[in-house]
Amino acid sequence: MKLGEQSYALENPPKIIAHYSVAGPVESKGMLGNFFDLKLDSDEWGEKSHELAECKMHHTAIMKALDMSGLEFKDVNAVMCGDLLNQIIASSYSAKDIEIPYLGFYGACSTFGEMLCVASLMISSGSFKNVTCSTSSHFSTAERQYRYPLELGTQPTPTSQWTVTGSGCSVLSSDGEGPEIFACTIGRVIDLGVKDANNMGAVMAPAACDTICTHLNDLNISPEFYDLIITGDLGKFGSKLLLELARERGFELKDVHSDCGSMIFNNQPQTIQGGSGAGCSSLVFNSYIIKQMKSGNLKKVLLVPTGALLSKTASMQGETIPGIAHAVSIGYRYN
Amino acid sequence: MKLGEQSYALENPPKIIAHYSVAGPVESKGMLGNFFDLKLDSDEWGEKSHELAECKMHHTAIMKALDMSGLEFKDVNAVMCGDLLNQIIASSYSAKDIEIPYLGFYGACSTFGEMLCVASLMISSGSFKNVTCSTSSHFSTAERQYRYPLELGTQPTPTSQWTVTGSGCSVLSSDGEGPEIFACTIGRVIDLGVKDANNMGAVMAPAACDTICTHLNDLNISPEFYDLIITGDLGKFGSKLLLELARERGFELKDVHSDCGSMIFNNQPQTIQGGSGAGCSSLVFNSYIIKQMKSGNLKKVLLVPTGALLSKTASMQGETIPGIAHAVSIGYRYN
Repeated sequence: MKLGEQSYALENPPKIIAHYSVAGPVESKGMLGNFFDLKLDSDEWGEKSHELAECKMHHTAIMKALDMSGLEFKDVNAVMCGDLLNQIIASSYSAKDIEIPYLGFYGACSTFGEMLCVASLMISSGSFKNVTCSTSSHFSTAERQYRYPLELGTQPTPTSQWTVTGSGCSVLSSDGEGPEIFACTIGRVIDLGVKDANNMGAVMAPAACDTICTHLNDLNISPEFYDLIITGDLGKFGSKLLLELARERGFELKDVHSDCGSMIFNNQPQTIQGGSGAGCSSLVFNSYIIKQMKSGNLKKVLLVPTGALLSKTASMQGETIPGIAHAVSIGYRYN
Repeated sequence: MKLGEQSYALENPPKIIAHYSVAGPVESKGMLGNFFDLKLDSDEWGEKSHELAECKMHHTAIMKALDMSGLEFKDVNAVMCGDLLNQIIASSYSAKDIEIPYLGFYGACSTFGEMLCVASLMISSGSFKNVTCSTSSHFSTAERQYRYPLELGTQPTPTSQWTVTGSGCSVLSSDGEGPEIFACTIGRVIDLGVKDANNMGAVMAPAACDTICTHLNDLNISPEFYDLIITGDLGKFGSKLLLELARERGFELKDVHSDCGSMIFNNQPQTIQGGSGAGCSSLVFNSYIIKQMKSGNLKKVLLVPTGALLSKTASMQGETIPGIAHAVSIGYRYN
């Protein structure tokens, strides 16, 4: 059922019946290291390129989550995948030997939120029964593609973020047990004119603010309805900006807001403002957050993956960078 | 309702209540020139880059189709967009000033089929009421990104295709009048080991064959059920290959099969095997096919956009190229 401008109440809330997380070496040494299902001690994971390593991480996350769900391939309506690589090859190559219909999504680092919205609506309405939702990113594939060869040793700027090496997968189902998705808000593209490709927090904070405020208005609730409102990868600077922007729209988020990008590392100096990447929110969600929900420490969470819709070509042509964010309400009634 | 392995019968078939097509200069001189809504006489369309020209085409297709639908922004649940550019910027930049929730898809040249499947299921099940589905591609942006600078004048190979410059948009609605989408089949990623990035027909034909045969089996119908089974952009060589592969699986398609890529040009020598690109099937569908349906010349059509999930990075690393195809059954009961 549509609520307000951009939100939906899910009458038959899909359950997250299984989840899996694969983390790179820097992430594994971060604050959430203990929560990851698989911790890699090398960026390459025995592959001949970083791109193949990302595919292997993404494929592993899907297959392990499917294993844990107990579902057979034939029972799964679709694998929904996304990543940051050009033509999302980490996704399509991961799905090559999985004999399940494939749907590819691109919403930059908001992709995990985008596919959770679509999958939830599909399951709640009865179109689908079981779906996997997965994203990945990799520091070295992202640096090569978006920035400079690693060998150059280029100095990051003070507003830089560190692309998360990792992948997370959730299996959503109409039946079974697990945290439930009871509402979602699909975001709009927001462009406030930022052109600095090294300041993604500033690009995404206005989009996060727009989606969160719209969500709260559409559902007619206050921020305290949630134990946690967690954005994808605003980083430390972007998180501050979000709080200020939300205040201007009448919402105080400081007591409930955290950011996946800000919490994933442990002040490791190279990570500067924190983590980013399409794998950031799915890795944190499919490890720390979902385990906190299952242990009863969190009851209601608003997950808001955020994305900067930039491309190297657009930045080189001097274009502004639009942002987007999607919000998913998750609750766990068994605690 | 799920039918067989990968297909769905749409119990409340969405209607295509409006559509718009924008074509580049080469396409406008092709066989279907008279059917396009807007014909450009230049690739740049007054913009300073080909990328901005593609954005303008994509944005125009969405806005004009929305105009013709009579819908207001607030009545549209989502704009679903996709294109071939890295990080699908033609899509996200087109949606910047359209105040409607945005969902970005990537399935290479199959994207239009992918989003029609998702949109149809969302509308049939009651989750959404109105959605736009649009894709675009542009010869010059694709050449720059996937191949060589145009200025080099590189000779194409005999199996090359010519990326279509154009964009098409369909507005799908639960109410109103227009051709109806009554079934769909979501494709799987198929990889038969082809590595030649200049022979996309050979990559996509196995995927098209798999999706078409699965569709016919799932719905328990023969190819003659349709007046036309039209693939996205196999080109001439890929079309031949499809017929042979389908014969091996027991289906004779020769009397009902056409290909958007093979019909869009008029044997213009530079186009070699025919058109390709994410805009190819949406341009041909939103002009020639839908107008033939409305005039009663076609009653039941199976549209099968096909995609080669390659990236320049993967090709340079020597990887194989997987393909995918999605199928959408469209009928018009008013004739």
